[in-house]
Amino acid sequence: MSKKNPVIIDLKFDREQVASALKSAFAGREVIDLALPANRTRDLSEAGYAVVWKPSPDLFSRARGLKAIFSGGAGVDHVLTIPGLPDIPLVRFVDPSLTNRMSEWVVLQCLLHLRQFKTYQAQSEKRVWHELDQPAAADVTVGIMGMGVLGVDAAHKLKTIGFDVIGWSRRKKVADGVETFDAAGRDTFLARTDILVGLLPLTEDTRGIFNGALFSKLRRNGPLGGPFFVNAGRGGSQVEADILAALDGGTLAGASLDVFETEPLPLQSRLWNHAKVFVTPHAAAASDVRALFAHVEQQIARHENGEPLQHLVDRSSGY
Amino acid sequence: MSKKNPVIIDLKFDREQVASALKSAFAGREVIDLALPANRTRDLSEAGYAVVWKPSPDLFSRARGLKAIFSGGAGVDHVLTIPGLPDIPLVRFVDPSLTNRMSEWVVLQCLLHLRQFKTYQAQSEKRVWHELDQPAAADVTVGIMGMGVLGVDAAHKLKTIGFDVIGWSRRKKVADGVETFDAAGRDTFLARTDILVGLLPLTEDTRGIFNGALFSKLRRNGPLGGPFFVNAGRGGSQVEADILAALDGGTLAGASLDVFETEPLPLQSRLWNHAKVFVTPHAAAASDVRALFAHVEQQIARHENGEPLQHLVDRSSGY
Repeated sequence: MSKKNPVIIDLKFDREQVASALKSAFAGREVIDLALPANRTRDLSEAGYAVVWKPSPDLFSRARGLKAIFSGGAGVDHVLTIPGLPDIPLVRFVDPSLTNRMSEWVVLQCLLHLRQFKTYQAQSEKRVWHELDQPAAADVTVGIMGMGVLGVDAAHKLKTIGFDVIGWSRRKKVADGVETFDAAGRDTFLARTDILVGLLPLTEDTRGIFNGALFSKLRRNGPLGGPFFVNAGRGGSQVEADILAALDGGTLAGASLDVFETEPLPLQSRLWNHAKVFVTPHAAAASDVRALFAHVEQQIARHENGEPLQHLVDRSSGY
Repeated sequence: MSKKNPVIIDLKFDREQVASALKSAFAGREVIDLALPANRTRDLSEAGYAVVWKPSPDLFSRARGLKAIFSGGAGVDHVLTIPGLPDIPLVRFVDPSLTNRMSEWVVLQCLLHLRQFKTYQAQSEKRVWHELDQPAAADVTVGIMGMGVLGVDAAHKLKTIGFDVIGWSRRKKVADGVETFDAAGRDTFLARTDILVGLLPLTEDTRGIFNGALFSKLRRNGPLGGPFFVNAGRGGSQVEADILAALDGGTLAGASLDVFETEPLPLQSRLWNHAKVFVTPHAAAASDVRALFAHVEQQIARHENGEPLQHLVDRSSGY
């Protein structure tokens, strides 16, 4: 058996989790973890694969023998913007662990808004016992923008809970029991949406798509007293100044944000403890590092057996 | 057609909701709404049916011609404790609107605990960007005590979200895909439970069942760092002094309470704004009054057509 090509690890993840997961991963294959000081100037020309999340800008000029690149998450905008990205297969991370976590977060946020959590919490702090009029989930429409693996899974789970669910994507997708819209149907989709869920990749088409003009097209007379915005896709898709203006002016009734234009969210941002906003630190669907390495091992095995790689990124569309 | 027997309404619900729902309910039948001052001393002997929630203690001595009693909610402890309750059919309210609302609340609370909401909220208030280690839902076992219509529906939805779910009831129930335990298996059930969900009726057997001795039998080495207690059944099933002691001593990691020993929850209770507790004012599954009246109309029609009533209460078991 010929020597296996080394795999480069360049993951800006929690160090302990990566180190722990590496102990039982890539058996029989050399691992070059770029987080170790000893590897900073090392020759990478023999490496065949790279597993990356926000990789070093000089990675691809140092590692010229790569056969495939694996993203550490569902998104690949952090790789596509690196200069000198070679024209080799780029694979996204699709895994039930990641999909389930994202849907947990999305369902949690939709339920927080449906069940008027902020109002009940404020009442509880003041020791006020008062039951609020409660709209039924079936009368509340969740509109999901981005109907890839994550969007379809969230749609299915939100429907099970009882919400009315519709979906939008640039190219129309078919999802069981969910009415879907494409680019031409965007305004119709928005006019029916009470809770807008963003699960879009960051591309030239989606940068700044969640702005004041879009928020003003959401359903205004819905049962929740105004529309909500929930974003777990990419911060670059949202205009935070517009979100704040829409919240302050009543165009939005509330928001849940896991992603931000700048991450970490700057200290001076008003979003941190806005009375109408739930903030989490890009934690909606943290990649399970063990599951990531298992996925990469599986894909490398396919590649070396001459089978096609799965979850390949289409560079012309950017996702 | 003979004159229809009047129906008594004695619901300690929001007045506006009851009045509004009555406008389009019980067509062709006289309605005696006991909330109206004019009806306080009225002769009730001709009334055939009563729809009640926490009825007046003298209701059954005044209305001696009743053929059936309808509870305004899933529970009937508020009726069974009334002196002079006649030996006629007692019907609980079972309706998708009520079941769905209860499951929304239960799923929301389980997700709040799974996704470490309190910690993230505290971080957000301090403008701290820090991702927490996140256990998978599949590694967290939700144990539901009370596997009636509400328990089975919540179990199904929690499983769809990804939780491991087990169920307990006095008499073993069979629920699709959910391992269930009966009275003899209670300690085994508790030892596997990370999030304990109470959906029990209040009976002589369940009064004070959620106490310190029970909490100490929950799983201690689970992935959430300690067990949680979620109660949406009846406040009389819980011992609040024990809940507070368990929270303070670390036997419980947190709680979500919609029901209380005394309702409204007294002003002096430490539960109101305890750092580890979510409080809602018996609002988990508010009865939709329109749906309640539609259910009562349907059951009265069955009764008058000689068909058996549905959702009858077994007085010997108390639910």
